[in-house]
Amino acid sequence: MLKPTSDYLRQLGFTGPGILINEDQARANIRTMAQKARLAGVGFRPHFKTHQSADVARWFADEAVRAITVSSVTMAEYFAAHGWHDITIAFLLNPLQWPRLEDLARRLAGRGGSLAVTVDSAFMAADIAQRPDLPLGVWIKVDAGYGRTGVSWQDKDLLQTIVDLLADGGRLRGLLTHSGESYHAETPNSLALVWARTVQRLESMTQGIASAGDLLFSVGDTPCCRFLDDLSGVQEIRPGNFVFFDLMQYCRGICLEGELAAAVVCPVVGLYPDRNRIVVHGGAVHFSREYLTGVEDKPFFGLLGTLTPGSGSKKGKAAAMEQRVLTEVAVTSVCQEHGTIEVSSQLFQEYFGRLEIGDLVLVWPVHSCLACNLAGEYRTMAGVILDNNN
Amino acid sequence: MLKPTSDYLRQLGFTGPGILINEDQARANIRTMAQKARLAGVGFRPHFKTHQSADVARWFADEAVRAITVSSVTMAEYFAAHGWHDITIAFLLNPLQWPRLEDLARRLAGRGGSLAVTVDSAFMAADIAQRPDLPLGVWIKVDAGYGRTGVSWQDKDLLQTIVDLLADGGRLRGLLTHSGESYHAETPNSLALVWARTVQRLESMTQGIASAGDLLFSVGDTPCCRFLDDLSGVQEIRPGNFVFFDLMQYCRGICLEGELAAAVVCPVVGLYPDRNRIVVHGGAVHFSREYLTGVEDKPFFGLLGTLTPGSGSKKGKAAAMEQRVLTEVAVTSVCQEHGTIEVSSQLFQEYFGRLEIGDLVLVWPVHSCLACNLAGEYRTMAGVILDNNN
Repeated sequence: MLKPTSDYLRQLGFTGPGILINEDQARANIRTMAQKARLAGVGFRPHFKTHQSADVARWFADEAVRAITVSSVTMAEYFAAHGWHDITIAFLLNPLQWPRLEDLARRLAGRGGSLAVTVDSAFMAADIAQRPDLPLGVWIKVDAGYGRTGVSWQDKDLLQTIVDLLADGGRLRGLLTHSGESYHAETPNSLALVWARTVQRLESMTQGIASAGDLLFSVGDTPCCRFLDDLSGVQEIRPGNFVFFDLMQYCRGICLEGELAAAVVCPVVGLYPDRNRIVVHGGAVHFSREYLTGVEDKPFFGLLGTLTPGSGSKKGKAAAMEQRVLTEVAVTSVCQEHGTIEVSSQLFQEYFGRLEIGDLVLVWPVHSCLACNLAGEYRTMAGVILDNNN
Repeated sequence: MLKPTSDYLRQLGFTGPGILINEDQARANIRTMAQKARLAGVGFRPHFKTHQSADVARWFADEAVRAITVSSVTMAEYFAAHGWHDITIAFLLNPLQWPRLEDLARRLAGRGGSLAVTVDSAFMAADIAQRPDLPLGVWIKVDAGYGRTGVSWQDKDLLQTIVDLLADGGRLRGLLTHSGESYHAETPNSLALVWARTVQRLESMTQGIASAGDLLFSVGDTPCCRFLDDLSGVQEIRPGNFVFFDLMQYCRGICLEGELAAAVVCPVVGLYPDRNRIVVHGGAVHFSREYLTGVEDKPFFGLLGTLTPGSGSKKGKAAAMEQRVLTEVAVTSVCQEHGTIEVSSQLFQEYFGRLEIGDLVLVWPVHSCLACNLAGEYRTMAGVILDNNN
């Protein structure tokens, strides 16, 4: 059953572990989200930490995206070097990196763009205030319930202090939050509650705050941005994962299997019919060790998939590939380089009966951001190699 | 309490997340293992997947190591390019990589060295047999109880089949196994049982096998090789992790805190005394998501540590740093770039009371192989940058 997919992956030129990108689908994912933001009248500043690739970034540019989010100075420098001028580092400012930040901020401003950073303390706000001539946008990070970083949404005093420190020079943009709790929403429908709670807390937090201007709200998480129709109440969204999606999204009902756009391709190196197991070259250094739990609370690190020529064809191109998730065929353990796929004896024959050592399997990763971060390049279904920052 | 360590790490030049290597200790770890192998009369073929660094490899060369183990063709090519001629790829052969393997095998043989590969199937043994002129050593991978890859130690028929296929040309070296179950040994003392069982199974497996010569036994796992005094019964050991060790080894009683030789350095970006929490730039893309479980079965992704000038000094050098593991201060969660360290309110004051944003903390990683794989370079305590293959 997995043989046709293996043959297809071989034709694409895979000979070892690697990442396959479905460019058409990734572009569709970008287009859908860009349109959604446009219709909702909110700014779209996608997070580029998922792909970290100047080549994939061009697909966003094709959808008129000009403003981006990254999570480190290194990523900001990489995308600045590839022509992106409007960058928010949605990660708390690290003062040891001031020399690099100052240089980057001046370079982007010199090109008519801008760099924005994120703070959640009076300490760092004061540090920024001591650089009045630096062309720098500033967002105040808010903890609206996720419980990681940010000014607590209940701490108006700290918010006022930071606003006061940053009032001069028109550099203060607003409040930025990441509602990561959306990844733990029990059902997709409860995402609306996460969104409403976030917006309501941001609003309540700013009531009575004396500020130099209006504080914008920037939020960003793929589950809410993908699933909800109503994105009102904020001025900017910053989702990232939606470009490729992954099993975290799929298994939680956020995306469809056809929307998955990044897979890990792994050669089969061991076949053990007597143990109902195959072993692939594809381990923690390809998938990461992120896992989900399935039946009987057993962890899995990926699910196998198939690619078969679809019936439809697009604009004279070859027929698009129809992609499936095999929910009963999981990567059940990973070591540094090994991935083990164990199934029942019945499923072994059904799925692996015709496989040979050297065949290639396609595995949908649990967390595409981490799998992509581990790869030095990507390969598209057209066999094109895409560069990334790793 | 963490301030002196931060000051020290700043002096070394860290400004963002990175790996600190204690070169003196890594060299001592290498020396100890090399001597142990020599005294035991077994060959020493250390696994280089832990460090993946040509610079660290030189420290092994200084201890007269000439033979190495790697876990991919890519790693083999990297070390071959850096002057290593005797390489075993202790990972099952992937036939899609024959062109690279053939090229590498001929190059190493041309330099008076050799490449060895690993098989566990008649399919691949037959594939090798079809290349009678290729200068290639072959090991038969055996599953002696770990349950990942390899010919089952009970399957003498398959062993005989593979031996027959590989009998010609003197290329067959012997049986290779990885007793990964040593990582699950309940106590260090029970490692002796793992070792004895492995040796006994390898011996029982070869009894009655008609072979072209003597089959050597190659085993390798850091817990057994570090902890046991008696390494008899085998001809070669292939441990890897021991060069740096990590919390997996330390928390299981395999190594001492003073033997840890690789740490992840992280800048503090968020301080939350009201929530007994600090947040550092150091996440899944720096530590990996490998975890251990501590009190109340809570996972942790690293433990903080301190470095303070020791009282002794070595050969006129500056006093060696005394390193400690703070077992009560753990990285309690990681996201892609964030690490969260949460403690009790009492411990917060004790450990973090004097810390400021921009200070650096030292974190001992759970699994040094994965943390090192995620880094593009290492920095030693002398401030020297070491190259690696990532």
